[in-house]
Amino acid sequence: MTDPDDPGLRYDGRMSLLVVGSMAFDSIRSPFGEVERVVGGSATYFSLAASYLAPVRLVSVVGKDFPEEMIRLLASRSIDTEGLKIADGKTFHWKGYYEYDLNTAHTVATELNVFQDFAPVLPEKYRDTPYVFLGNIAPSLQLEILRQVRGPRLVALDTMNYWIENSPGPLREVIGKVDIVIINEGEVRELAGEYNLIRAARTLMGWGPSRIVIKRGEYGVLHLADGTMFAAPAYPLETIFDPTGAGDSFAGGFMGYLAGLGDGEITENDYRLATMYGSAIASFTVEAFSTRKLQSLTPEDISDRLGSFQALTEFRV
Amino acid sequence: MTDPDDPGLRYDGRMSLLVVGSMAFDSIRSPFGEVERVVGGSATYFSLAASYLAPVRLVSVVGKDFPEEMIRLLASRSIDTEGLKIADGKTFHWKGYYEYDLNTAHTVATELNVFQDFAPVLPEKYRDTPYVFLGNIAPSLQLEILRQVRGPRLVALDTMNYWIENSPGPLREVIGKVDIVIINEGEVRELAGEYNLIRAARTLMGWGPSRIVIKRGEYGVLHLADGTMFAAPAYPLETIFDPTGAGDSFAGGFMGYLAGLGDGEITENDYRLATMYGSAIASFTVEAFSTRKLQSLTPEDISDRLGSFQALTEFRV
Repeated sequence: MTDPDDPGLRYDGRMSLLVVGSMAFDSIRSPFGEVERVVGGSATYFSLAASYLAPVRLVSVVGKDFPEEMIRLLASRSIDTEGLKIADGKTFHWKGYYEYDLNTAHTVATELNVFQDFAPVLPEKYRDTPYVFLGNIAPSLQLEILRQVRGPRLVALDTMNYWIENSPGPLREVIGKVDIVIINEGEVRELAGEYNLIRAARTLMGWGPSRIVIKRGEYGVLHLADGTMFAAPAYPLETIFDPTGAGDSFAGGFMGYLAGLGDGEITENDYRLATMYGSAIASFTVEAFSTRKLQSLTPEDISDRLGSFQALTEFRV
Repeated sequence: MTDPDDPGLRYDGRMSLLVVGSMAFDSIRSPFGEVERVVGGSATYFSLAASYLAPVRLVSVVGKDFPEEMIRLLASRSIDTEGLKIADGKTFHWKGYYEYDLNTAHTVATELNVFQDFAPVLPEKYRDTPYVFLGNIAPSLQLEILRQVRGPRLVALDTMNYWIENSPGPLREVIGKVDIVIINEGEVRELAGEYNLIRAARTLMGWGPSRIVIKRGEYGVLHLADGTMFAAPAYPLETIFDPTGAGDSFAGGFMGYLAGLGDGEITENDYRLATMYGSAIASFTVEAFSTRKLQSLTPEDISDRLGSFQALTEFRV
């Protein structure tokens, strides 16, 4: 397995990871400050997080107002931006706030802008990407991406309450075609129509996926698969500025770690270690607004945080 | 350390553990059923949980309506009931309900009855008990117990929002005299006047205690001490009938494990393993109403659940 001094960052034979999702401007107020129109979006956070561990292929759309500097930053970090469309119009804009309970985002305004007509078409070279992450977009678009990829090795999906309520048919269809669902605690309950998380996860697994990864905000992650459960805490932090992007950073680290392993069999411990990489990277995201902290990590930062997670959870019987 | 096949249950040289707290009748409604006037109370759950690991000395009061059968059960299990007063009048009665969010208890009625005039006097032989747990009662009574014990080795305390709001002076005074505070997540925030748990724990440690053990219901336990943090999940269960007594069962398993170790130095791993014993025993309590499941465990039940906790949390880097 991986050398503890080398958190997979220089692993040879890493496989590529395709992500489709939003890129956005976020305007956010939290008890710790306020920012206007900073760079955000699920695909942005996911790509940056995953890029520490595997090459990423990005599929998204922005308007002409999106900073070229950020696109150059992505391209400089093993993130292929050929699938990023720059459309006439304005970039998707989310405005919201958090109170002290940082687990709950309150939406003030959602301006879809160029995202409204997003019809993803994969560049030819993207179609054989072995690892695929379908970020939180319309289930019909997630299905469209799956029609365009050829025989992926592993597909994971995220979704949200809006699609659960407004597009249940296509959502159920696309869930039937993926291996892993990565989803918030409240949303898995709503989707399955079942409060108990074990039974909710079993309901979803009955539709097709073999693993359900439940995101619980500051309480960490609960991971359910046939015959096994894994619970990982979030890292307790003294300063949390902005939880926006934490879930997408987690998913990016999780999928990036798996893609970075190459083409061997994925073991249960690989899934667990992927969970810890995702948690470690997400714990940096929340320490600053926007992608400021996430985009400037070193391999040592990540491996130190992974060591802190071990110290946080270990006990000897 | 302990043999994994022997979860400390036959450990020689175990020390005694004094608990003061309520014994009660509970009337509870949850989405999974309803019970009327079943046996409950913090000292009841604590004693039963701890009795698997160490001899217990019980200090509490009940009315003449309390079932003798339950007192005989306690006495049959290394729980000394000399400090249990049977007073003229009716036993303390709590009536409440839970909705699907089992982390929040809603109180409908509290009838203090004989508990109203509770003035604990320790039997002489209790006064040298080395381990002491001050259950959730009036801080003035917790202080009174501390005046009666002689040089205890380790003292832990629980409290609740009622005392935080109505008796802040004595509460602050008694916290200054204990080693460990075992407290709910919402209550540590209220007590410290600080939302962030790391800072809240540091505030409390500034008053005297060296460890703060934060109970987070279905999310487990977060343990803070100088220079170290420990996070343990709760065990995900498919059937949770009644969370009443889970926190007290946790505290009983936690303190029982430490007392059961005897008189050697307590290491960081001892505190962690104590946390896992507490969590394992509490995970049984919630699987049935009242003490039904808690009172009928075998050593194998506890050691199997401890093994399940290891499987739930372990990962190899």
